[in-house]
Amino acid sequence: MQVFGDRSSGNCYKIELFCSILKIDHDWVDIDVLAGDTHKAVFRKLNPNGKIPFVTLHDGNTLAESNAILGFLAEGTPWLPPSGIKRAKTYEWLFFEQYSHEPFVAVARFIQYYQKMPAERMAEYKECHVHGTHALTVMEHNLVKHGFFGGHDPSIADIALFAYTHVADQGGFELQKYPAITRWLDDMKSIPGYTPITERID
Amino acid sequence: MQVFGDRSSGNCYKIELFCSILKIDHDWVDIDVLAGDTHKAVFRKLNPNGKIPFVTLHDGNTLAESNAILGFLAEGTPWLPPSGIKRAKTYEWLFFEQYSHEPFVAVARFIQYYQKMPAERMAEYKECHVHGTHALTVMEHNLVKHGFFGGHDPSIADIALFAYTHVADQGGFELQKYPAITRWLDDMKSIPGYTPITERID
Repeated sequence: MQVFGDRSSGNCYKIELFCSILKIDHDWVDIDVLAGDTHKAVFRKLNPNGKIPFVTLHDGNTLAESNAILGFLAEGTPWLPPSGIKRAKTYEWLFFEQYSHEPFVAVARFIQYYQKMPAERMAEYKECHVHGTHALTVMEHNLVKHGFFGGHDPSIADIALFAYTHVADQGGFELQKYPAITRWLDDMKSIPGYTPITERID
Repeated sequence: MQVFGDRSSGNCYKIELFCSILKIDHDWVDIDVLAGDTHKAVFRKLNPNGKIPFVTLHDGNTLAESNAILGFLAEGTPWLPPSGIKRAKTYEWLFFEQYSHEPFVAVARFIQYYQKMPAERMAEYKECHVHGTHALTVMEHNLVKHGFFGGHDPSIADIALFAYTHVADQGGFELQKYPAITRWLDDMKSIPGYTPITERID
């Protein structure tokens, strides 16, 4: 398997972290979004949507969307429950992550950590904080009752939500306000095979 | 099963349409987002994220996120392939729909069809058209080669993408520019059990 990605991107880090924990053999191909790599014709031919992470498999098949890739890699492992309500709840959190969390928590981080707070994006940054704070509140509400988003044990929903939550402070979110999330982040970091996200070098 | 939803919302219509095609017995509970129903304490207790559609099952379990609900209802049917790359590609399109399509095609429709183009949202409306047009182009690219997003046969990815695409003209998108999408929309409407989306009454 070839993984096309940027190790400092949370969506790509999900795949790096999961492969590290499950010891999934793969080749990593560095893609630099800021340098325009995803707009190049050679990449657009592979993935017309122009997004990373993106994987190519030995049989020639390709797969995009970080959470779909996690679902594919986790099939048959304890990280994705068998069919039924537990599997459905795992996907519920995966869709929550991509719709109600990532577009706000990740974008606030991008504006603050990558772009250094340009004036023309401050209104958007504030809007990201409204919705991102709501997402963190929903997560806290769940983690007060359950050890992980998978319930007793971690699932790919935990991998997906961990990616941008654990660096949410780089987007100006104060994680110490969420004690259950803070406990969960520590639990995630103690999973054998855990590897930290790559810090961006400017 | 109880379904909490607004029949004129594309995300809720996905569930209505799929239940109609598969003849899935359910009770529909009307929720009016514009009247503030999803902000009421009784609803927030059921779903802390405050979003519809939302379902409660006979065993007391609950499930949110339209595409997670589709995945749950489709398990064991031809609408969701068994595990492997075909299932993963179905989820790839489901995540594409929620991340790269719905936030632009649905929001443009909301601004034009529900809100009647308020001046303060025109910059956002234009931005929605940039990203929504990209999403429709990616869809067209796929539908030139394949009958459905599921390949030869329709899948829940087709249900999800149909919901807001077939009313994209209400958001100002010119569907006649996309011949493969237009053909696919007609094919979807000819599926036995098809039911049209409810028009909003102002």
